[in-house]
Amino acid sequence: MSEYAQLEPHQFRLLCREAKHTSHTSGACEEYAQANLIVLPQEYADDFINLCLRNPVPCPLLCKTPVGNPFTIDNPEYIKEGFDLRTDFPSYNVYENGELKFTKTDVKNEWSSNHIGFLIGCSHSFEHELCENGLIPRHLALGRGVPVYKTTKNLDPAGVFTDCTYVVSMRPYRPEDVPRVREITSKFKKTHGEPIDWGYEGAERLGITDLNRPDFGGQPVIHDDEIPVFWGCGVTPQLVVMQQKNKIRGQVISHTTGAMLVLDITSEQIKRLE
Amino acid sequence: MSEYAQLEPHQFRLLCREAKHTSHTSGACEEYAQANLIVLPQEYADDFINLCLRNPVPCPLLCKTPVGNPFTIDNPEYIKEGFDLRTDFPSYNVYENGELKFTKTDVKNEWSSNHIGFLIGCSHSFEHELCENGLIPRHLALGRGVPVYKTTKNLDPAGVFTDCTYVVSMRPYRPEDVPRVREITSKFKKTHGEPIDWGYEGAERLGITDLNRPDFGGQPVIHDDEIPVFWGCGVTPQLVVMQQKNKIRGQVISHTTGAMLVLDITSEQIKRLE
Repeated sequence: MSEYAQLEPHQFRLLCREAKHTSHTSGACEEYAQANLIVLPQEYADDFINLCLRNPVPCPLLCKTPVGNPFTIDNPEYIKEGFDLRTDFPSYNVYENGELKFTKTDVKNEWSSNHIGFLIGCSHSFEHELCENGLIPRHLALGRGVPVYKTTKNLDPAGVFTDCTYVVSMRPYRPEDVPRVREITSKFKKTHGEPIDWGYEGAERLGITDLNRPDFGGQPVIHDDEIPVFWGCGVTPQLVVMQQKNKIRGQVISHTTGAMLVLDITSEQIKRLE
Repeated sequence: MSEYAQLEPHQFRLLCREAKHTSHTSGACEEYAQANLIVLPQEYADDFINLCLRNPVPCPLLCKTPVGNPFTIDNPEYIKEGFDLRTDFPSYNVYENGELKFTKTDVKNEWSSNHIGFLIGCSHSFEHELCENGLIPRHLALGRGVPVYKTTKNLDPAGVFTDCTYVVSMRPYRPEDVPRVREITSKFKKTHGEPIDWGYEGAERLGITDLNRPDFGGQPVIHDDEIPVFWGCGVTPQLVVMQQKNKIRGQVISHTTGAMLVLDITSEQIKRLE
């Protein structure tokens, strides 16, 4: 289990702000929900919001900031005042023209007066309830990040965001446990909900050719009596941005895979949101 | 154009109720929005609502009835009192065990005290605005129903509803008109919004092998300087039900393809709904 399992969210965010924790957040503040980040120049905000509304499973939009203001969000139930979205994630990716330019532990210099930040739901939020039901995700038992894969499944396009594909996280389970895993996670509608596919046939449908080589996150371990189970993943917006290449002008900022913002809303509370 | 283009919705619904109009509704009451229907035994309602929430592009849920009551919906802005969902569509399909059993002009005997009806947004709703912008859908010019195709694109599953695939409607446009077609229809978020794909490569991505053989609706005519443009289609829930085969017990009712309920909300009004 994470050494940060019992910390309060604001304590953990302070560690991130001071760059004392700079890697993945699986198991951190275990009763609290977590969020993905994407920060876009404001001219792409409407198309991005529409993309999220059209594709709520991989892109469950929780809330957004005003233009140029990383200290405020439009739905205060997720996180209390006093945060700074430029520093409170463990680390950040900065993209230009769809290419990763650098990775940093804060983006104070990059978050401009023209940027809007979006918080996206994260599947870490349902892992605590899986654990409580004896369905401990393998990567938590191994102390790794969750394995994350690109797929060939297309998002429904929105404005500038075309030719986008789902990114999925994977947790292995025995086939007889899949119905219970589906039921538990289906309640978390704001954090990807139930799996989008499962089984080795599911991997094939999603265009995942080699399960042993995830595109992001930790190395998977799947036992012989288990099958892979795939959830929509909040890394999707990052891939979407990379896939737009030269269509998006200006810098785009995201969190790094698995290194999330810990929110002040508990998993139990976020489960109740539609 | 439809001979019913200028009728008031309640007048047109009366024609349907009296079985004087029993076929497609393209162009009927041209300024008003239209809706698809699916009627399920109540035990499948929660899973179906979740399916719609997870897949809002092919399944934009507008409103639902109470159990066993086809005269009331939970959002009165769509249609005024005095309707009867058992009679006010031109015609209905009745399914058992995922198989079409019969087609009728009313379902007074089939809509039981255990049934819940769901109204789903319909792409007919944005056709008037396309016409007003000189982008007349071909099937309207030809006086036919819109061509509708099954695809291989998977919906994200929800509960009992697994292994479901998108159904799409198709309208041909010149490539240079696609950006304007996307922009106009993108505003109609409750009636499928912008296209999900376009072009002959898009048809291939969607697994449509023969454009000349639509699975439902009218025969297409695509000119040499045009490409097919595909929208999510409210026939999807019908296909979803057929795809569940023996998993759904009891009778399921739907409208027949292209033969919609004309609502009392105008296309201009439905365009403003998120």
